[in-house]
Amino acid sequence: MSKELDSIMRPEAIAVIGASARPGTIGNEIMSKLVEYGFAGKLYPINPKAEEILGVKVYKNVIDIPEKVDLAVIAVGRDLVFPVIDQCAEKDIKGIVVISAGFKETGHEGAEIEKELLKKIKQYGMRMVGPNCLGVINTADGIKMDASFADALPLAGKTAFTSQSGALGAAILNISKDLNLGVSQFVSIGNAADISAEALIDYWKDDPNTKQMLLYLESIAEPEVFSRLAKEITKEKPIIAIKAGKSAAGASAASSHTGSLAGADLAADALLKQSGVIRVHSVPEMFEVAQAFANCPVPKGKRVAIMTNAGGPGIMATDAICENGLEISQLADSTRDYMRSYLAAAASVKNPVDMIASAPLDHYEKTLKALINDENVDAVMVIYLPLMNLDPMDVSNVVMKIKEENPEKPIIAVMMAKNDFFSEINKKKTNIPFYQYPETAAHSMAKLYAQREWIDKPAGKEPSYNVDKQKVQEIIVNALRENRNQLTTLESIDVLEAYGVRTCKYAFAANVDEAAAEANKIGYPVVMKITSTKISHKTEIGGVIVGINSEEQLRQEYAGLLERLKEKGMQEALDGVIIQEMVKGAREMVCGVATDPQYGHLMMFGLGGIFVETLKDVAFRVNPVTDVDVKEMVRSIKSYKLLEGARGEIPARVEQVEETMLRLSQLVKDFSFIKELDINPLKISDKTGEGIAVDGRIEVDYDKAKQALEGLTVSSGSL
Amino acid sequence: MSKELDSIMRPEAIAVIGASARPGTIGNEIMSKLVEYGFAGKLYPINPKAEEILGVKVYKNVIDIPEKVDLAVIAVGRDLVFPVIDQCAEKDIKGIVVISAGFKETGHEGAEIEKELLKKIKQYGMRMVGPNCLGVINTADGIKMDASFADALPLAGKTAFTSQSGALGAAILNISKDLNLGVSQFVSIGNAADISAEALIDYWKDDPNTKQMLLYLESIAEPEVFSRLAKEITKEKPIIAIKAGKSAAGASAASSHTGSLAGADLAADALLKQSGVIRVHSVPEMFEVAQAFANCPVPKGKRVAIMTNAGGPGIMATDAICENGLEISQLADSTRDYMRSYLAAAASVKNPVDMIASAPLDHYEKTLKALINDENVDAVMVIYLPLMNLDPMDVSNVVMKIKEENPEKPIIAVMMAKNDFFSEINKKKTNIPFYQYPETAAHSMAKLYAQREWIDKPAGKEPSYNVDKQKVQEIIVNALRENRNQLTTLESIDVLEAYGVRTCKYAFAANVDEAAAEANKIGYPVVMKITSTKISHKTEIGGVIVGINSEEQLRQEYAGLLERLKEKGMQEALDGVIIQEMVKGAREMVCGVATDPQYGHLMMFGLGGIFVETLKDVAFRVNPVTDVDVKEMVRSIKSYKLLEGARGEIPARVEQVEETMLRLSQLVKDFSFIKELDINPLKISDKTGEGIAVDGRIEVDYDKAKQALEGLTVSSGSL
Repeated sequence: MSKELDSIMRPEAIAVIGASARPGTIGNEIMSKLVEYGFAGKLYPINPKAEEILGVKVYKNVIDIPEKVDLAVIAVGRDLVFPVIDQCAEKDIKGIVVISAGFKETGHEGAEIEKELLKKIKQYGMRMVGPNCLGVINTADGIKMDASFADALPLAGKTAFTSQSGALGAAILNISKDLNLGVSQFVSIGNAADISAEALIDYWKDDPNTKQMLLYLESIAEPEVFSRLAKEITKEKPIIAIKAGKSAAGASAASSHTGSLAGADLAADALLKQSGVIRVHSVPEMFEVAQAFANCPVPKGKRVAIMTNAGGPGIMATDAICENGLEISQLADSTRDYMRSYLAAAASVKNPVDMIASAPLDHYEKTLKALINDENVDAVMVIYLPLMNLDPMDVSNVVMKIKEENPEKPIIAVMMAKNDFFSEINKKKTNIPFYQYPETAAHSMAKLYAQREWIDKPAGKEPSYNVDKQKVQEIIVNALRENRNQLTTLESIDVLEAYGVRTCKYAFAANVDEAAAEANKIGYPVVMKITSTKISHKTEIGGVIVGINSEEQLRQEYAGLLERLKEKGMQEALDGVIIQEMVKGAREMVCGVATDPQYGHLMMFGLGGIFVETLKDVAFRVNPVTDVDVKEMVRSIKSYKLLEGARGEIPARVEQVEETMLRLSQLVKDFSFIKELDINPLKISDKTGEGIAVDGRIEVDYDKAKQALEGLTVSSGSL
Repeated sequence: MSKELDSIMRPEAIAVIGASARPGTIGNEIMSKLVEYGFAGKLYPINPKAEEILGVKVYKNVIDIPEKVDLAVIAVGRDLVFPVIDQCAEKDIKGIVVISAGFKETGHEGAEIEKELLKKIKQYGMRMVGPNCLGVINTADGIKMDASFADALPLAGKTAFTSQSGALGAAILNISKDLNLGVSQFVSIGNAADISAEALIDYWKDDPNTKQMLLYLESIAEPEVFSRLAKEITKEKPIIAIKAGKSAAGASAASSHTGSLAGADLAADALLKQSGVIRVHSVPEMFEVAQAFANCPVPKGKRVAIMTNAGGPGIMATDAICENGLEISQLADSTRDYMRSYLAAAASVKNPVDMIASAPLDHYEKTLKALINDENVDAVMVIYLPLMNLDPMDVSNVVMKIKEENPEKPIIAVMMAKNDFFSEINKKKTNIPFYQYPETAAHSMAKLYAQREWIDKPAGKEPSYNVDKQKVQEIIVNALRENRNQLTTLESIDVLEAYGVRTCKYAFAANVDEAAAEANKIGYPVVMKITSTKISHKTEIGGVIVGINSEEQLRQEYAGLLERLKEKGMQEALDGVIIQEMVKGAREMVCGVATDPQYGHLMMFGLGGIFVETLKDVAFRVNPVTDVDVKEMVRSIKSYKLLEGARGEIPARVEQVEETMLRLSQLVKDFSFIKELDINPLKISDKTGEGIAVDGRIEVDYDKAKQALEGLTVSSGSL
C-alpha cells in the first residue's frame, strides 16, 4: 500500500485542476500554498482560461502536460470532477485529492454520487484523498508540499496528523505552530471515500519522518483493520487520537444489561485501548500529550521526582501525580544528603524537593542532576515560579542542557510564567516539553507511563477450548424452528455448559410435583426460577425465589408464583420452573456479550446482580479478546478487590473466571449471530471460589442464525 | 471586623519599615511598587540610614512621622519585628503587614516566636497580615495600593484573591494579566497568624469592588467559621477555591469503614460544597471559571445551544456539554425555520447549529440573536474556527454587541484561533469570556449552572427529634466504667434505638440455650452474631450467621462458631451472641460518622455491605447537616437508583432513610465525643421499604467522654 500513497504524499509533479489567479478562491489558495511553501517538484496549474498563475505556466488540460504527473489536486465544481478524473486516467495519474464538496456530506443523493466516484477511482487503479477535504501536506525535505487551503504552512517535525473534520484540522495545524509542534505529514481525509485513517496508519508506519501520529476521528470505518494496523505500530510510534461523538445515543437499542451499558462509545473506547491507541478527549489534551511524546523517552517506571522553587505548586504537583496513578519517588538518602549540603536551611530535601524562593540557578542545575541520577527516580518534573531573582529562560536553558546530557529519563518543565515566555521558548529548538501548570505535566507523564505499560504488555493468546459445538447448534436450531430468537434460561445454561462454563446444577420441572422431585435430587437449599419464552427480566415479576429449604416451602412458593402471574394475566407464560443448586456467595459478577452494529461483539465483565446498571463497575473489550485482554479487564474493575477477598472471604478463582470470559469469546466467535448473552450473576462460590453461572440469557439474530444454520439437521429435525 | 481591616486594605498613610534604596531588596521592591502603582495616600519609608528613597522622604522611625499612619508594612529581619511593632503601637498604627520570614514555616522554634508575635498584636489591638507573606494590593480608585513584592501591578477589576502560597499568588497575579482578569484586592496571607481566608471573606463580603473571590488554600484554619461566612455570601458573590493537599495521607488512621474512607480531603470537599464554594482543582481551571463568572449572568437553566462554523468542534462541544451534566437545548421550531431561511443548504439547523465553513459574519449575528431569544435556550456557546473568509476579531465584536443587547443569558465564545488573537482580545474591554476550546467552555458553563443550583437551594433545617438522651448517657457511662471506648454491638444498637433509629428486633443471649429461647420469641429466620468487646470486624471471623431457620440449625451454628474461635485461640473473646430478626432485602446501605481532627464530625451515607470500601459509592457532609444537605447527600450516590427501586424492588422509604441520618446527626451533636459510628448495613426491607439498622458500631473518645460525663450517676453507679 505504501507505494500507492507515494503518488499522493511524495509526488514529483502535481497538477492543480481548478487553479485560479483570483485571490480568495480555493484554487488560488492551494496554488499559493504550494508556491509559498516551496514545493520541490513540478507544478502544473490547470485552467482553460488562464495563461499563468503566480508565475507558473498554466495548461488547459492535464493531457496537455508534456511530462509525467503523479498527483492531481482537484478543486472544481462537483459535476466537473468526473470528466476531470477521466482525463487524469488518460494521463496515467495515480494520485488524486478531491477538494470539491457536494458528496456524501450533503445527503443521500451526494452519497450515491460519491459511490460512483469511488467506483471510477478503483477502476482506474487510482488512490484518492477526499472528496470534501482541505488537502494534503508533506513537510519532508525534497518534497515540501502544502497542497491545502488551510492557513497553516506548518513547521516541519515528526508528527503526522489526520483529521476527519477539515476545519478542525486546519485549526489544529494553526495552533500547533504556537506550540512548536512540528508536523511530518497532514491529510484532511474529508469524506474518506477511499483513503481513511486506517490507510494512513499503514502508510505512516514506514515513513521515517513520522515518529508519532495524531488522529481526529468521528467514526472508525473498519474497526478490525484499524485495530490490526494500530497494534502493529503503536509500540514503536504512539498514536494519539480524539474520537468525538461520545455522547451520541448508542446505536443499539438493545434491551439487555450488556446492551444498555454498551453504547457505541464504549466499543470505540475498548477498541482504541486494545489497539494501544492513546485516547485523548480534547484538542489541548492532544497537544499536551503530543508534546510529551515528541520530547521524552518512555519512562521505565512511574516514580516521579518533583523539584520546585515554591511550596504551593509542589503540593499541587504531588496531588496531580497521585491522581494520575503515578508515584512520588522515595529519594535515596545519598541524594537527600547531597541536596542538604547546598540548599537553604528552610528548603525541603524530601520529594517534592522545595528549594524555596531564594534558590539561584545553580540549585536548579545541581538538584536536577542529583534527581535524574537517583535510581529511585523514573522521571522528573521541574517547577519554576517567576520570582525576583531568576529568569525563566535561564532556568529553561539549564534544564535543557541537563536533559541533553541525560537523555534516558523524561524531564518535564512546568513554568508558571506569562504567555510571552511560552512565545519565546516555542520559537527555539527544545528537547523537553514546557507546560504552564503541574496538572497538565502530570497528566502527560501518566500517558508516557501508560505507553510503557503498553510496550511491556505481552501479545496474548486466544485459547481454543474443547467444546460441544454440535450441542449448541442443536439448541439454536430448535429455538429457530419455534420461531424464537431468544433462548430459554434452560437452553441458555445448556449452551454455556456445552462451552465448558461452570454452571450450577439444575433441572427443568413442568409442574410442582416434578419440581419437588428434582429439588430432592439436587438437595436443599435450592433456587426456583420461572422459565418462559415470554418473560425476559425475571426478577421484576418475582420469578426468582432463592433459599428454598424444604419441599413444604417449595410448594408454597410455587403456588405464590402462580398467583402473581395470574394477577398480571400472564399465567399462560409459564413453561415451568428450573430448580437450581443454590450457590452460596455474596459476590455476584456479570459476564456478557453485546453486539455493536459497527464494532461487532463487545465483551463485558463486571459487578453483577442488582448493581450492574446502577454502579456500572464493568469493563468492555471488543472481541476477539486474548487471555491478556481478559486478565486486564477483570483486574480493571473496582470490585476486583472483592474477588481477591478484600473482606475476608475466600479469594475467587480468578483464572477460572477469566477462562469463563475466554470461553464466551470462543462461543460468539463460533456463533457470530449471537446478538446478546448475559451471565448474571456469575456467583463466586464461598466454598470453592469458583465463578458459577447461576442464570443465563442468550439472544440470536434470527435471520443471520437461520442463514448460518440452514440445512443443518439435528435430532429434532432440520430448519 | 470590616472596619479593622480597612487600616490594612484602605490606608490613607503607609509606613514601609525596612524600605531600601538598593534594587533587588524586598524593601526596595515594595517601595517601587507602591510608587509605580501610584498609591493615593501618603508614603513614609522608614530606614535609619537613608534620606530619600525613590524621591520620597525617609524617616528614621515611625514615631518621627508627623502625621497619622494606618498601615505599617514591615520588611526587616525577624528579630527586629518585635521592637518595630512596639514602635508602631506607640504611633497608634492599627494595620500591620509582616513581610519578614523566619516564623512558623521554619519549624518549632519559629512557631513559638510567631505565637509571641500574635499575642503582641492582639494586646495592641492591631490586625496583622502575615508573617512570611508577599504583601497586599488594593486596586480601587482612591487607593491604588500595591504593597507587595510580587511582579504583577495587576489590572483593576472585580475579583478579590488570596493565596496561602506567596509565590503561587504572585504567579497567578502575573498570569491573570494575560487573561484580562482584573483584581480588586489581593492578600498574601502567608502564615495567616491573625488574618486568614475567613477574615478576608468577611471583609470582601461588604467590599463594593469585589464581585467574586478566588482562594488558594492549603488548609482551612477554622472550618466552622469558614463555612458560616462562606454560606452568607456565596449566593451573591461566588467563591472559587483551590484546596491543595488532596493526596496527603488522611490525618485520621481510624479503623472503621467511615474512618478509612474519610480522608481529610473528603472533609474539606464536603465543607466547601456545603458552603457553596466552587471548588476547582488547578490554576487554569480557576482562571477559566473566574472568567465565566466575571462575564456571565448565572443562567436560569442548563439547556445550552451551540452554534459553529465547523461540524467537528460542534460534536466535541456536544460531548463536553453532556459530560458536564448540562443539556443540549431542543430548539423551537420557529428558531429552526428562521435559521433555515438564510443558512446554507448544507447547514444544520438542529442543535448544535452548524452554519458550515462558508458562513459570513451576518450568519453569526442572526443565528446568535435567534438562539438567545429562543425560550428553550438558557445559554449559548458560539464556536468559531478560523477559515479563509472571516476574521476572529470581527466575529468577537459581533458576539459582544449581541451580548450587550441581551445581557440576561450567558454567551460564551470558543475561538479556536492562535495565541495572537487571545493577546489582542485580552487587551480589550470584553463582556463575554473567550476560550480556545469547547471543553473548557462547557466546564465553565457547568460551574455557572452549579451556582444556579446553589442559589436555588433552600436553606434547610436541623430538625430536633424527641430522643432518650438519658439512656445513651447510661450506656456510655457503663462502658467507660469498664474502661471501654468501644460499645458492644448490643450497646450500639441500644444507643441507635434510643435516638429513634429503626433497628431490627434483637436480644442478647449468653449461651446456646438462651439463644434458642430468644430466637423462638423473635421468630425464624434469625441472624446470630457474635458479641465481643475484643473483636471488631465480625464478618472476618465468620461471626455473623444469617438465615438460621430452625432451632436445630441454630444449635449447630453456635457450635461451629465456638469451634472457629477455638482455632484462633479466641474463645475467651465471646461474650455471647445476639439473636436478631432477619430483615429480607438485598439493598444494604451504610450510615456512618467519622471524626476528622480538624473538621469534626463527618457524616457518611452510601452503598453498604461488602461494597463500602471497594466501590466507594458514598457521600460525605460535615456535621451539622440540614434536612436539605441530607436529601442532596442521599440522592448524590449512584446507588440512589436502587433506593428508588430501579430493578423492580419496592421503593425505599427515602424520607425515613434521610431521617435516620438526621437522627445520627443529632446524636453526635449531643454526644460530641462519639468518635466513630457505623450502621452497616442499614438494610432496606423488601417488605416495607424502611431502612433498618441491622448492625451498629460506636466508638467514643475515652478522655473526652469521661470529661463530659464526669460525675453523672446512672443506675449502675457513677463514673
